[in-house]
Amino acid sequence: MFGPRRRHGLTATQGLALLVTACAPSPPGSPGEAPPNIVIITADDLGYGDLGSYGHPNIRTPHLDRMAQEGQRWTSFYAQAPVCSPSRAALLTGRVHLRSGMFGRRTAVFFPDSRAGLPDQEITLAEALGELGYATGIIGKWHLGHLPEYLPTRHGFDSWYGIPYSNDMDWSLPDGLTNRAAYFEPEIDYWRVPLMRDETELERPANQTTLTQRYTEEAVAFIEAQSDGPFFLYMPHSMPHMPLFASDEFRGQSTAGIYGDVIEEIDWSVGQVMEALERTGLSERTLVVFTSDNGPWLPYQTHAGTSGLFRDGKGTTFEGGMRVPGLFWWPGTIESGVTQEIGSAMDLFTTAITIGGGRVPDDRPIDGVDLSPVLFGTGPSGREIMAYYRMGELYAFRRGRYKVHFVTEGRYGLPPARTDHDPPILFDLDEDPSERYDLATERPEALAAIVAAAARYRANMTVGEPLFDLRGGS
Amino acid sequence: MFGPRRRHGLTATQGLALLVTACAPSPPGSPGEAPPNIVIITADDLGYGDLGSYGHPNIRTPHLDRMAQEGQRWTSFYAQAPVCSPSRAALLTGRVHLRSGMFGRRTAVFFPDSRAGLPDQEITLAEALGELGYATGIIGKWHLGHLPEYLPTRHGFDSWYGIPYSNDMDWSLPDGLTNRAAYFEPEIDYWRVPLMRDETELERPANQTTLTQRYTEEAVAFIEAQSDGPFFLYMPHSMPHMPLFASDEFRGQSTAGIYGDVIEEIDWSVGQVMEALERTGLSERTLVVFTSDNGPWLPYQTHAGTSGLFRDGKGTTFEGGMRVPGLFWWPGTIESGVTQEIGSAMDLFTTAITIGGGRVPDDRPIDGVDLSPVLFGTGPSGREIMAYYRMGELYAFRRGRYKVHFVTEGRYGLPPARTDHDPPILFDLDEDPSERYDLATERPEALAAIVAAAARYRANMTVGEPLFDLRGGS
Repeated sequence: MFGPRRRHGLTATQGLALLVTACAPSPPGSPGEAPPNIVIITADDLGYGDLGSYGHPNIRTPHLDRMAQEGQRWTSFYAQAPVCSPSRAALLTGRVHLRSGMFGRRTAVFFPDSRAGLPDQEITLAEALGELGYATGIIGKWHLGHLPEYLPTRHGFDSWYGIPYSNDMDWSLPDGLTNRAAYFEPEIDYWRVPLMRDETELERPANQTTLTQRYTEEAVAFIEAQSDGPFFLYMPHSMPHMPLFASDEFRGQSTAGIYGDVIEEIDWSVGQVMEALERTGLSERTLVVFTSDNGPWLPYQTHAGTSGLFRDGKGTTFEGGMRVPGLFWWPGTIESGVTQEIGSAMDLFTTAITIGGGRVPDDRPIDGVDLSPVLFGTGPSGREIMAYYRMGELYAFRRGRYKVHFVTEGRYGLPPARTDHDPPILFDLDEDPSERYDLATERPEALAAIVAAAARYRANMTVGEPLFDLRGGS
Repeated sequence: MFGPRRRHGLTATQGLALLVTACAPSPPGSPGEAPPNIVIITADDLGYGDLGSYGHPNIRTPHLDRMAQEGQRWTSFYAQAPVCSPSRAALLTGRVHLRSGMFGRRTAVFFPDSRAGLPDQEITLAEALGELGYATGIIGKWHLGHLPEYLPTRHGFDSWYGIPYSNDMDWSLPDGLTNRAAYFEPEIDYWRVPLMRDETELERPANQTTLTQRYTEEAVAFIEAQSDGPFFLYMPHSMPHMPLFASDEFRGQSTAGIYGDVIEEIDWSVGQVMEALERTGLSERTLVVFTSDNGPWLPYQTHAGTSGLFRDGKGTTFEGGMRVPGLFWWPGTIESGVTQEIGSAMDLFTTAITIGGGRVPDDRPIDGVDLSPVLFGTGPSGREIMAYYRMGELYAFRRGRYKVHFVTEGRYGLPPARTDHDPPILFDLDEDPSERYDLATERPEALAAIVAAAARYRANMTVGEPLFDLRGGS
C-alpha cells in the first residue's frame, strides 16, 4: 500500500561497526538459551535534540553516543503521549493509554491529590517478565498512582527506589515566591516530593541534588546483586524535569547551563550502568534501551531541552512533543547503525517479552509490536502508524510518511492555543520533518486515505474511564 | 576574561576512536617531513542539520558520518558570510570579505552581469600553497567573478572543472513559467550556466543532472594523477543550491525527496574521494575538510535543508544562516571526537598554510587563525569571536558564549524584514543556541562588554570598494 520503503535499511555509521555485526550470534530466543536481561532507562522531558548523537552542539553525552555508535539509533522513535503519566502507562502495558484509563478529560497526568492509579487488571512488563522468571526492579519516578494499592510493588516490581510523581508537584513555597520563579532558583525544600523504598517513605522532601547519583548507585548495586536468573531493570530518571538539580560534581561543568549539567549527569549515569554490565560480564546478555517520556518543556526556556529540527515540545502533538531519542545497545547481538523504522515506547513491552521467550497477553488488545526484527537486522518493525492522543482525544495520526492533524495546540512554548482543523492539515514527515508545509490542498488523495485510516483506528480503540480526573477529597 | 572554557575538551564518541588517537604520530610540520595534501570539500546551501551526524532523522550520510566518527566534528564552525560569493572569498583568502571588496551595498553576490571579481592582489590559498610546491585544482563552483581575468586559473589554480556562478543564474524560461515554479520542476535547459574547463566553455547549459557525478570522477582522476608532490584540491559542489538535480542512480532513492537524493549523492561523492585517497595510499598524508558555504535556503521549503535547532537560514545572520557542519578527517593524525571550539572557514586558509609548512602573508591583515592545535589535540583554536556581516554591514557579533544583534533580517523563510535593534539584543549561545531569549535587559554588563568589543572590531576593519555593486553594461 505504501510502495517500497527504504526505512529498514540500516546506515552503519562507520566501518568498524560492521565488525560487530559480522561476529554477532544468531538472534536469541532459541530453546535452551538463557533469556537476556532487559534494562530500560528513560529521561523525563528530554528532547529529541538534546544528545550529541542527535545533533546537540554543546551538551556532551559520550556514553549515550557510545550506545548509539555501538548499538542502534532510531530516528522515528516515539513516546506514546506528550506528557508523563500516559506515556509511562503505555510503555509498561504495551497498550495505548486510553485502554487502561490512563488519561483525563480535564487533567493531563496524576497529581498528589489523585485518587486513582494504574488499574490492577493491567499487566505490566514487570509482571509479564516476572512470570518468565525475571527479577524486576524500578529505580526512579513512577507516576502511575501514589496511593499504596497503585505502587510499583503492586504492579510486579520486586523493589522500588524513587519518587511517586513529578519532582515539582506538592510544593511548599516561601511567601511571595511564585512557582515559576522557584523553578529557576530552586531550593530542595520548596518541594515536598518523597523518596520511597518499596512502600516506605525514606526522605521528604527528597534531596533532588543527589537523586541521579543515588539512582545510579542503586542501579549498579541491583546489577551486581544479580546471580543466575535474568533481570528487568526499569530506570525512569526524575531529571531533566523542572526544577533542575545536579550534584556538586556536575553543577557548572557543562557549557549549556544547569540543563546541560543535568543531561551530562544522566549520561554519566548511563555510562555507569554500561560499565557495571561489562564488569559483571553481563553486557552481551543484556538489552539496554534509552529513551525519553516526552519532548522538552519549552516554556521553561534555557531550563528546557530542544526538540532539534522538530516542531514544538512537551504537551503538544507536533513531533517535538513525542518524537524522542531511541537507543538500543546489546554488544554482539544488535546490528549497529541508524534506522528510520517507526517505533513506539509501547513496542518495548512486546519486544522485551518476545526476546524473553514469552508471549504477550492474548485476552486484551495489545498495541505494541515486536521491534526485534529491526534490532537483529532480519526485517522491518511492522509499525506503520503512530497515534497522537492528548487528553483522550486523537489530535493527530501518522501512517508511513504522512501525518494528519485534527487538532493542534502549542506555539513554541507560548501558552497553548487549541486550534481545530477542519479540513485537517497534512504534513509529509519524510520531506518536511519540521511540519511546516500543509499539503492538504495539494494532495487530497493522501489526505482522504489517512483521514479514513485514522477514523478506523479511532473506532477500534477501546476507551476506559478517564482516571486522571478522579482527584481530591477521599 | 572569559573564565575557564571547556570548549576545547574533545568528546570521543566511542572507545574505538581512542585507538586512532593513541597511535597518532606527532603533529606534522617537522623539518624534512613531506607536507600533507589538503582537500577542502564544500556543499552549497547545505544546513547545519542536514547530515546524520548533525541530527538529520532521515537523510543518510554514511560517508560524512564516517568522517565525523574517525575524524573531528566541529559544532561551532561557521561560514564567514550567509551567502555564496563573500563566503567563498573569505575561505580562499583567510580574510573577512569586506577587506577584499567581496560585498555590495545593493547586491549580495556576483551575477552573470557582474563586471568585477576577486581582485588580483588578493592571495588565495591556491597561490599560497602553490608557492610551497603544491599542485592545485578546483572542481566545482567558483562564484568569484566569471570574466576571464577573475577565473580560478588566474588565482593560483592549475586547473578548473566547474561552473562560474550559481546554477540558477542566467535563466531562460519558457513563456509563462515563473522562476519559482521552474525551481520546483526544473529542466536543464531552463538555465544557461556553462560548464568550464580551465578557461574554456565545455557545455552550455551544463547538464546539472550528472554534475555531482562528473565532479567526482574529475576529483578521483585528479587524486590518481598525483605523483610525488603535495596537492591542494578544492571541491565546491554546486548542489544542493536550487534548482536541485540528482543523477539517475540517486533520484528517488532517499526518503527525504529530491533534497535528500542530492545530499545522499554528495555523501557518495565524499566517500569516493576518501576511497581514492585510501586506494592510492594517501589518506594518512591528507587533511580532508567538509563544510558548507552558508545555511539552508529556507524559502524553498522541502527543496531546502534544515539548520536543525538553529534559528533561520541562508541570507540571515542568525546562527542558521552561518553555522554549518565542519568535519576534519586525517586518519592517524587528527584527534577523533567532537569539539565546541569556534572555527571559521577563513581559518582553513591559515591552518592549511601552517600545516603545509608555510607562513601566512604578513603584508596585509589576515583574519584566519590556525586551527591545528585543536585538530592535533594540543590546545584551543585561539578564535573567540565571530563577525556576522550582511551587505557590508556588521549585523551581529559573537564573543565566547554571547552574541549581540544590531540588525536582524529573516523570519524563518518568509520575505526578510529588516529590524534595527536599539538597544541591541543579546543571546547566550551556550544556554540558548536557538537564539530565543533576549538577555539584554537581564545582563547589561555582558551587553556593554560585547557592544564595546564589536565597536572595536568594526573600527579596525579595513573596507574595500563594494565590488558586487559593479554590474551591467560594459
